[in-house]
Amino acid sequence: MIKKLTIFGVGLIGGSLAMALKKANYCETVIGCSRNIEGLEKAKQLGVIDDYTLDPVAAVKGADIVLLAVPMGAMGTVLQSVKGHIEANTIVTDAGSAKASVVAAARSVFGEIPPFFVPAHPIAGREKSGVEAAIVDLYVDHKVIVTPLPETDAAAEQRVIKMWQAAGADVESMDVEKHDQVLAATSHLPHVLAYSLVDTLSHSEVSDAIFRYAAGGFRDFTRIASSDPVMWRDICLENRNAILQSLEAFQVNLQVLHQQVSDADSNGIMDTFTHAKAVRDDYMKSQS
Amino acid sequence: MIKKLTIFGVGLIGGSLAMALKKANYCETVIGCSRNIEGLEKAKQLGVIDDYTLDPVAAVKGADIVLLAVPMGAMGTVLQSVKGHIEANTIVTDAGSAKASVVAAARSVFGEIPPFFVPAHPIAGREKSGVEAAIVDLYVDHKVIVTPLPETDAAAEQRVIKMWQAAGADVESMDVEKHDQVLAATSHLPHVLAYSLVDTLSHSEVSDAIFRYAAGGFRDFTRIASSDPVMWRDICLENRNAILQSLEAFQVNLQVLHQQVSDADSNGIMDTFTHAKAVRDDYMKSQS
Repeated sequence: MIKKLTIFGVGLIGGSLAMALKKANYCETVIGCSRNIEGLEKAKQLGVIDDYTLDPVAAVKGADIVLLAVPMGAMGTVLQSVKGHIEANTIVTDAGSAKASVVAAARSVFGEIPPFFVPAHPIAGREKSGVEAAIVDLYVDHKVIVTPLPETDAAAEQRVIKMWQAAGADVESMDVEKHDQVLAATSHLPHVLAYSLVDTLSHSEVSDAIFRYAAGGFRDFTRIASSDPVMWRDICLENRNAILQSLEAFQVNLQVLHQQVSDADSNGIMDTFTHAKAVRDDYMKSQS
Repeated sequence: MIKKLTIFGVGLIGGSLAMALKKANYCETVIGCSRNIEGLEKAKQLGVIDDYTLDPVAAVKGADIVLLAVPMGAMGTVLQSVKGHIEANTIVTDAGSAKASVVAAARSVFGEIPPFFVPAHPIAGREKSGVEAAIVDLYVDHKVIVTPLPETDAAAEQRVIKMWQAAGADVESMDVEKHDQVLAATSHLPHVLAYSLVDTLSHSEVSDAIFRYAAGGFRDFTRIASSDPVMWRDICLENRNAILQSLEAFQVNLQVLHQQVSDADSNGIMDTFTHAKAVRDDYMKSQS
């Protein structure tokens, strides 16, 4: 049970967690804090939070858990604003899509990794953002990865794990570097590719016809290009190294396939496609 | 109305058309022809076709319309096998995903573009293939593009248009080159990218974790990598030039984005993502 949960940034991610914990009777009071009073007012009207404050120091006072669900680029600023005001029993966790940069921000603000800080990442999202997009079951059967550090207090880690489990999530631990590498490959790179594809096609001389005749495959393939540009720009900046590594591996692979098509290398193309289909089919089987 | 429709290659595409025309009472008899007797027997058992033959000459005898729904690479072989046996009132059309290569095959077999030949492309598909995957409403509200040539008989074109309309499709005309360019961009390139992405990730040192933590965005983005490798290899070979053109434009665009991420060029990344999202959102609005 959580008596007081403070959420910095009550949007899709923070709002959905608040709704899920309320429904599970796992949390007594949820306080929102951000610089966007209209968003906070909206969250309160929707019943997602009980109350809000614009004052970070007041927000964290007496909190059991403080969740940072602000854009990745704002994590350091929020930590700085509450530095020296985090009480002995308060745990701080976050929901950032990349972990090394949040850990670096915490180290920079506190001069070390504080034991009360538990980096975490709920792997869930929607194209829509903002508190209006929050839904009570966003985390049900979704994975949350916690990336504890050697300095992290084990009891704090357990409380964060239990909180996400109460929201319906399947929680696992992973080290920071592996998390960032895996997420770059599986989530960040596909977003970069989808944005780049749509951008490329929009500059084609036949772009009107392209979008007119695009069918279901295209719709699914480009769905993630409708995601929030600010969030994904931040992710590109915050997980830059791992994304570049994935992107470069992809560019090399794509150039090989380009050469195979250019050479009309029937066997080469067939091998690539057959292998990819087998891997993708195995992946789908593992999901069902 | 069609008295006799002959379908070469009774798989997803040919089978679904047969089912739709039967349901619409638009076709009396459907005859299947291929080199795969088991597939034909299955199609007959399922009631998709009325009968079948392994003999191409017998198959086209007395046919109103002959549909070539065989793999792209087999179009020329089928045309060769019926050359000299196509009756005066018989129309030949096809369902290939690229048009210039089918037109070239027809020109090569007949020494000219025959007036009775109407190249066409139903933009519809499923991941599954084969006659078992055929469904009666595959073409409902889907586009079919006919790409008539100057030599094409106008009445033949109209009959092909009406046939697809009877199956529920929205039929439009386009010239061959534009068709191939548009389809390369909107369908063929995304398939190449999806296959290449899955192939790339399968060779990562953390590939087990990648597929373990992949979420909904990844599932949608890679769905088309579960498509039939033979069909897509053929498309890569048959629409090679247009695909290479699209692919190269994408590679250039992706390299620009790579540089922006590498430079931590926040504004550059933001501009690309914002533009792509706006274009993709407009596209979705145009679909609804």
